Amino acid sequence: MDSKLKFDFNNMMSQYVGEKDGFTVHDLEKLDVLADEAAKAFSAIRGQGMTEWSILPEPKCELVSEIKQTAKEIRNDCDAFVVLGIGGSALGPYALFQALSHLRHNELPRSRRKAPKFYVEDNVDPERMQALLDVLNLEKTIFNVITKSGSTSETMSQFIIIYDLLKKTFGPNAAEHIIATTDADNGSLIQIAKEEGLTTFLIPKGVGGRFSIISPVGLLPAAVLGIDISAFLSGARYMDTICKRSNSIYQNPALAAAVLQYDSFTNRGKNISVMMPYADGLKTMADWYCQLWGESLGKAVNKAGEKVACGQTPVKALGVTDQHSQIQLYVEGPKDKVVTFIAVEKYKTQITIPGGYDDMPAISFLSGHTLNELISSELLATEYALTKNGVLNNKIVLSSLTAESMGQLVMFFMLQTAYAGELLKIDAYNQPGVEEGKNATYALLGRPGYDAKAQEINSWPKKNSRYILGT
Amino acid sequence: MDSKLKFDFNNMMSQYVGEKDGFTVHDLEKLDVLADEAAKAFSAIRGQGMTEWSILPEPKCELVSEIKQTAKEIRNDCDAFVVLGIGGSALGPYALFQALSHLRHNELPRSRRKAPKFYVEDNVDPERMQALLDVLNLEKTIFNVITKSGSTSETMSQFIIIYDLLKKTFGPNAAEHIIATTDADNGSLIQIAKEEGLTTFLIPKGVGGRFSIISPVGLLPAAVLGIDISAFLSGARYMDTICKRSNSIYQNPALAAAVLQYDSFTNRGKNISVMMPYADGLKTMADWYCQLWGESLGKAVNKAGEKVACGQTPVKALGVTDQHSQIQLYVEGPKDKVVTFIAVEKYKTQITIPGGYDDMPAISFLSGHTLNELISSELLATEYALTKNGVLNNKIVLSSLTAESMGQLVMFFMLQTAYAGELLKIDAYNQPGVEEGKNATYALLGRPGYDAKAQEINSWPKKNSRYILGT
Repeated sequence: MDSKLKFDFNNMMSQYVGEKDGFTVHDLEKLDVLADEAAKAFSAIRGQGMTEWSILPEPKCELVSEIKQTAKEIRNDCDAFVVLGIGGSALGPYALFQALSHLRHNELPRSRRKAPKFYVEDNVDPERMQALLDVLNLEKTIFNVITKSGSTSETMSQFIIIYDLLKKTFGPNAAEHIIATTDADNGSLIQIAKEEGLTTFLIPKGVGGRFSIISPVGLLPAAVLGIDISAFLSGARYMDTICKRSNSIYQNPALAAAVLQYDSFTNRGKNISVMMPYADGLKTMADWYCQLWGESLGKAVNKAGEKVACGQTPVKALGVTDQHSQIQLYVEGPKDKVVTFIAVEKYKTQITIPGGYDDMPAISFLSGHTLNELISSELLATEYALTKNGVLNNKIVLSSLTAESMGQLVMFFMLQTAYAGELLKIDAYNQPGVEEGKNATYALLGRPGYDAKAQEINSWPKKNSRYILGT
Repeated sequence: MDSKLKFDFNNMMSQYVGEKDGFTVHDLEKLDVLADEAAKAFSAIRGQGMTEWSILPEPKCELVSEIKQTAKEIRNDCDAFVVLGIGGSALGPYALFQALSHLRHNELPRSRRKAPKFYVEDNVDPERMQALLDVLNLEKTIFNVITKSGSTSETMSQFIIIYDLLKKTFGPNAAEHIIATTDADNGSLIQIAKEEGLTTFLIPKGVGGRFSIISPVGLLPAAVLGIDISAFLSGARYMDTICKRSNSIYQNPALAAAVLQYDSFTNRGKNISVMMPYADGLKTMADWYCQLWGESLGKAVNKAGEKVACGQTPVKALGVTDQHSQIQLYVEGPKDKVVTFIAVEKYKTQITIPGGYDDMPAISFLSGHTLNELISSELLATEYALTKNGVLNNKIVLSSLTAESMGQLVMFFMLQTAYAGELLKIDAYNQPGVEEGKNATYALLGRPGYDAKAQEINSWPKKNSRYILGT
């Protein structure tokens, strides 16, 4: 593999970041033992239950061919491709789109775009849905409805609205505008797909939404955009291979990253994990990470049923943009966070800052430099400022934003999360905490069978008008 | 004022959220005393120094007329309006754009848009700048370069590149494509503006970037988009009036919000403030809040020079989207956050979910409901789930997204921040923590006068290859 993801944790070490929070060589030695245990615990469950995401499709398997074939037809025939999904079903496709397509893709002329316009609709705000309908040419649009459970209220609401519209517009041909990505057996979507004869891709049983980027959830939309999904899968396999071959934090980058965050959270009071890429293309990838990290590790109890209430709160920041928003806080505020930078060694273009302002020292030094140098220098400067001020930080370095490097990156994050789950001894693959809200929504909307919950909500103390101001 | 912002803090009270973290009536009484002091402290500095943002322009003053006149010409003549700015100079305009324009504005036909396409370029990623240049028709484009200091490296780099391009393309007419928004005296931009004869709007001395939304920084781009800036100013004035007339948390909503966050941070271990609007239009407004809150309150020392290292870390979440990303963590993870919801009572459109799936109970209950009911029910359900699980939360309620309600909202946030600054006894208007990174950038780019800093960076211990994995 030509381009290799690097993980640099020098600035977590006491030698750089200071004694107070920094890790010593001795700390690392102790953590290496914990890491070994966690890696072994993950090996023991790898590929089973909800860790089926770790069994990666071969870059040239039948599924990949089938996805590429479907994508090719869509690329030729369609003006717009719309993902209807929420959570991992939206963030995975959107992250790959933003990282690997032109940053103004939808505004390019068709000849330059070479792919349909691309939309990811991950909310039920009625204004948002109306805005989408205002710009679509339905005749040339494919909707990819994605839900693992097949019953996600938001996604299925969108689907019902859209499918109704399509049926009213195209009659029996409506089904040609929908592709379903869902579970083989469970949920309403697979049932509808069978009844209506929808083109369908299956999400493997043991792949949860936040781990589904390397499944048809992420792969089909990526292929529609012209992203080389075989290279993406090769990148992921490469990272998996690297990490599989060692249980030591000195060899396994995802394991090192996991154990450093784990110890920062557990023993050093760092309850915030900031993900700060220095590339606009990685903004949504940071959102994808935030779901993966937050939803996997934010758990009330561990596997033994003991109360733990663990989980760092992930925060997205964008370099250099958020230097002008959040760095003041990171430098001077509480030492409650670990910042992970993502550096890009080579951007796809280079732009030079011209001269002509020699008499203005506040800006003349910029001239002759490239924006590439500016953004890279600002990253180094920010690392330096944080480290000097005792803020734990580390860095993922990508050679450039390619399908291959994105495969490496998502696999790095998924393995890091899996290892962190074992370190915390929690189930990283469930999400019991969302049930209360789901059930309350069902009750509020009058779903049969939720009367008890409705009654419980109604018996909640009435709001006190004294605590509502501005009326 | 017909539509009034409401602030509802019932779910901060122990009666609802539980004894452990909830506020009692007795707590409120004590806090009301603190609040009174803070409000008085703010009154004492109001309008002076860097609090000039609290002196709002009259909705019908000369400045507003001038902005409207310029905006009208741009609306008639131009295809694209590009803001070059970073931090508050970008987030303010972008927040108003997203809240008050069509959510797919740039993709609408000109006839429907009634305003130029709109871009906010707040990063120096070369791929981002190239992507912008790929879709612009320069001849019909106006660039609004915004920097208070007049020397912000990122913004001035963008400006230098663009102005060079404009000069090469349009010769002496290049200046017609630029509007400068900056300080009257300081910095390179005002000097260039005078030399080149650029149309210029001034940012008042005592208005910092993150408070500049109610100044030409926010007002000109908003007016170009056709937003009623007089109504926006009226909304802000209304909120200011409401808050000015009482120093009690039972009357002054921004003060109540400030003191609750203050005590949550200081005495209840809540170092995270989540801002979670239930409207796609408010996504960037949440980013704007994150800068305001983070940069204003994240301070190493208080006014007395004592070390405090204070400041909540603001986090943006979007309802309902992030229910499928972050709510698991919020419900089950550490009790380290306060969640502030923003509700919208009336969306601009209504979409009904059709029927036809009677045999599928997991989705049939949705039919006949509107997306409006779904999103509102999900907000109530999420409030309920968090409250039941002991997570402190409160809610800002807007009648709808209008220029007026946005005026109220931004003023609410600015006053809340100002009060919080007085409660923490810190200077909410400076940002000394960004200097280290700025200086390091200058040094790395070889700016004259920064040799000592360059030497300091060079003498930093070399990185240890043992801590760089994946090579």
